[in-house]
Amino acid sequence: MLEKFQRHIEVNFPIVNKKNLLIACSGGLDSVVLTHLCVQCNLNITLAHCNFKLRGAESDGDEIFVKQLAEELNVEYVSVVFDTLKEVTEHGGSVQMVARKLRYEWFETVLDERKLDYILTAHHADDALETFIINLSRVTGIDGLSGIPESNGKILRPLLPFSRQKILEYAKSKRLKWREDSSNSDSKYLRNKIRMDITPKLKELHPTFLNNFLMTQTFLSQSKTVLENRIKEVKEKVFKEKGDTVKVRIADLKALQPLEMYLYGLFKGYGFTEWDDVKSLLDAMSGKEIHSNTHRLLKDRDFLLLRPKQEKPEAIFFIDENKERIEAPIPLHIETTAEFEKLDGSIVFLDKEKLNYPLTLRKWKKGDYFYPLGMQGKKKLSKFFKDEKMDVFSKEAQWLLCSGEEIVWVIGKRADERFKIDGNTTQIVKITYLI
Amino acid sequence: MLEKFQRHIEVNFPIVNKKNLLIACSGGLDSVVLTHLCVQCNLNITLAHCNFKLRGAESDGDEIFVKQLAEELNVEYVSVVFDTLKEVTEHGGSVQMVARKLRYEWFETVLDERKLDYILTAHHADDALETFIINLSRVTGIDGLSGIPESNGKILRPLLPFSRQKILEYAKSKRLKWREDSSNSDSKYLRNKIRMDITPKLKELHPTFLNNFLMTQTFLSQSKTVLENRIKEVKEKVFKEKGDTVKVRIADLKALQPLEMYLYGLFKGYGFTEWDDVKSLLDAMSGKEIHSNTHRLLKDRDFLLLRPKQEKPEAIFFIDENKERIEAPIPLHIETTAEFEKLDGSIVFLDKEKLNYPLTLRKWKKGDYFYPLGMQGKKKLSKFFKDEKMDVFSKEAQWLLCSGEEIVWVIGKRADERFKIDGNTTQIVKITYLI
Repeated sequence: MLEKFQRHIEVNFPIVNKKNLLIACSGGLDSVVLTHLCVQCNLNITLAHCNFKLRGAESDGDEIFVKQLAEELNVEYVSVVFDTLKEVTEHGGSVQMVARKLRYEWFETVLDERKLDYILTAHHADDALETFIINLSRVTGIDGLSGIPESNGKILRPLLPFSRQKILEYAKSKRLKWREDSSNSDSKYLRNKIRMDITPKLKELHPTFLNNFLMTQTFLSQSKTVLENRIKEVKEKVFKEKGDTVKVRIADLKALQPLEMYLYGLFKGYGFTEWDDVKSLLDAMSGKEIHSNTHRLLKDRDFLLLRPKQEKPEAIFFIDENKERIEAPIPLHIETTAEFEKLDGSIVFLDKEKLNYPLTLRKWKKGDYFYPLGMQGKKKLSKFFKDEKMDVFSKEAQWLLCSGEEIVWVIGKRADERFKIDGNTTQIVKITYLI
Repeated sequence: MLEKFQRHIEVNFPIVNKKNLLIACSGGLDSVVLTHLCVQCNLNITLAHCNFKLRGAESDGDEIFVKQLAEELNVEYVSVVFDTLKEVTEHGGSVQMVARKLRYEWFETVLDERKLDYILTAHHADDALETFIINLSRVTGIDGLSGIPESNGKILRPLLPFSRQKILEYAKSKRLKWREDSSNSDSKYLRNKIRMDITPKLKELHPTFLNNFLMTQTFLSQSKTVLENRIKEVKEKVFKEKGDTVKVRIADLKALQPLEMYLYGLFKGYGFTEWDDVKSLLDAMSGKEIHSNTHRLLKDRDFLLLRPKQEKPEAIFFIDENKERIEAPIPLHIETTAEFEKLDGSIVFLDKEKLNYPLTLRKWKKGDYFYPLGMQGKKKLSKFFKDEKMDVFSKEAQWLLCSGEEIVWVIGKRADERFKIDGNTTQIVKITYLI
């Protein structure tokens, strides 16, 4: 195995020679063998161990084991302890996902601090096959079947072509010691079941099943690249960005064949993995909206509008009497003037005596109404928005200038009759929306 | 099951209503259930049975069984007997492939003769899963994993969403009879092994494993469509057809990423499924050639030249003295003339007395030489071709006009010194290559 590993490194990872490598070392069979192989190849390695505190004394035992391994092999060692369950409680997600996130974020930090170049993980061919089968058991597509790449940015997986069997044989022949993980999480349970019941039977179907499988994954992964490039091309054509909103003509989407495949590819990056939801939206009533964890997708007449979810709660901003300029939430210039110029959407002239300071800036709420300048009587803001053909996103983006509870100016759109300049006005306030 | 089948037909195959359907009926469980379900749905069916004569009396028993089934159900029946092994001996291929070809060709004939509209086959979800696993055990790609479509031209597979288990339960609940196939071909052996050892364990991984799998195949098949469209686009750009030869600029190919994936996609239709052979050819010496079963692919300096294999052996064509015009293998016009015009690549003037009739037309062979007009001495034809920068395909396409063994004219390229007009010429033969 050592010779094959050496050759594999020379041919496929010539770059690691003379580089500083971090080995993600749990203390388990795979990472211990990877560590030994790297030492045999005279690579410059640092062992990095994460103690996730998920298995009490056993977790601590793993940490001590890896530390001793580093001492025996006379290589650098670095470790960290995480309160994984606390993280899960505070931020949500599965234990596995959280641990994964913690691990890779920490690796990045270690790379930075210790001036290391690459992270090596001990994923092997059987891991890849098990993941393939787990994904197959759920609904998946080419993404879930094409596997993890041998190298992906700073992460290298030099054991990927090797079977668990070969790794175990090597460990035994060299009388290596490693730690067994006694836990049995859902994911481990599934993997164990696959490892016991399924993969041995699959391997009986063909003498080089595992190699064939890796080759198949390589082909799938190449197909995936072509698909992704195609999706990117289409996206550049049909996704029109405007500020933080993306506008997509529904007719452009419907022209794509096969539609489901394109909808999935185009919107998965925004968290919409259920393409049938997106598909239904194409023919839904205008105003219908669906949400992913991160984004909102709105049908607005002939378009879909895509937008990140607002995370900050809506606030009220105050404008004091002496203020001449504000920047947040929108830039306004305020001055007292004697001149009353021609009206313009971005400028409003108000009778100062009719205003109650501080003025406020806020978003609209249900039941809001105002007295549109030049019109008789009041109008519901929702009706005004509708007449202006404003979509949900535009309505949400609309700021209102208020005096007490009364709307003074639907900013940039329409002033209110009640605050207008008249024969009795002595002081004019001119407010400019600095678009 | 009947209700689900009925709904499935209504939703996914509304077209079959009032149409005439051929059911491919082996007499086995699946096709017997399909037949019964179709009868229950009042579809217009004809049972078609192929007797491949591969299992002696058992084969004949199947045939009788299906005939009786048709009588009991009062539906049309048609059958055929094939000498499958004889076909295999005569034309090669695996028994399975040959039987498949015979079957579908015959179905097409029956459709034609009996004015039927569609062929229904009894492929079900477990068949699809088994095929997926068989292909996975070999090296495959998205083609081998995306499965057979529910409808493909005239072939419909309305049992595809149903499991073998459901089909068996239906057959038992209705006390249907069917024939068991006692044979154990390689392919059946593999399928049985997968059916016994692997698929039951896979199904334990997820409560709706089989449905998830079918959904995954649908996604893969959509991805495949996008890929195929992309390959088609690229092909239209880089494959330049000229007669029966396709010329491809190597630089255009090398610009494609991922190259392997594109080489596979672009050349698989010509029988080149080993993309690494094609890849090696890109950087091979000019003149290097690889062959598929149907095509030849030649590296010619900056290009690949692709061409169907010639099936006819090279022939010699005779031109009698009185002949004025020939069409095959190339069109030539021959006349006796007194005028000696300006030379032109497509015309040659010969001294009739120097010729031995009948003249012949043949392709070149190793060792050929001639005396190029206007040059001193003889020249090997291979050297002449090289100086003319002719590729292998052009050389093979080149016809030679000969008098006995002597080359008179490398047609369209160069005449021979020995047959030229001189001071003693009394009769001039003018031959025109009618390009």
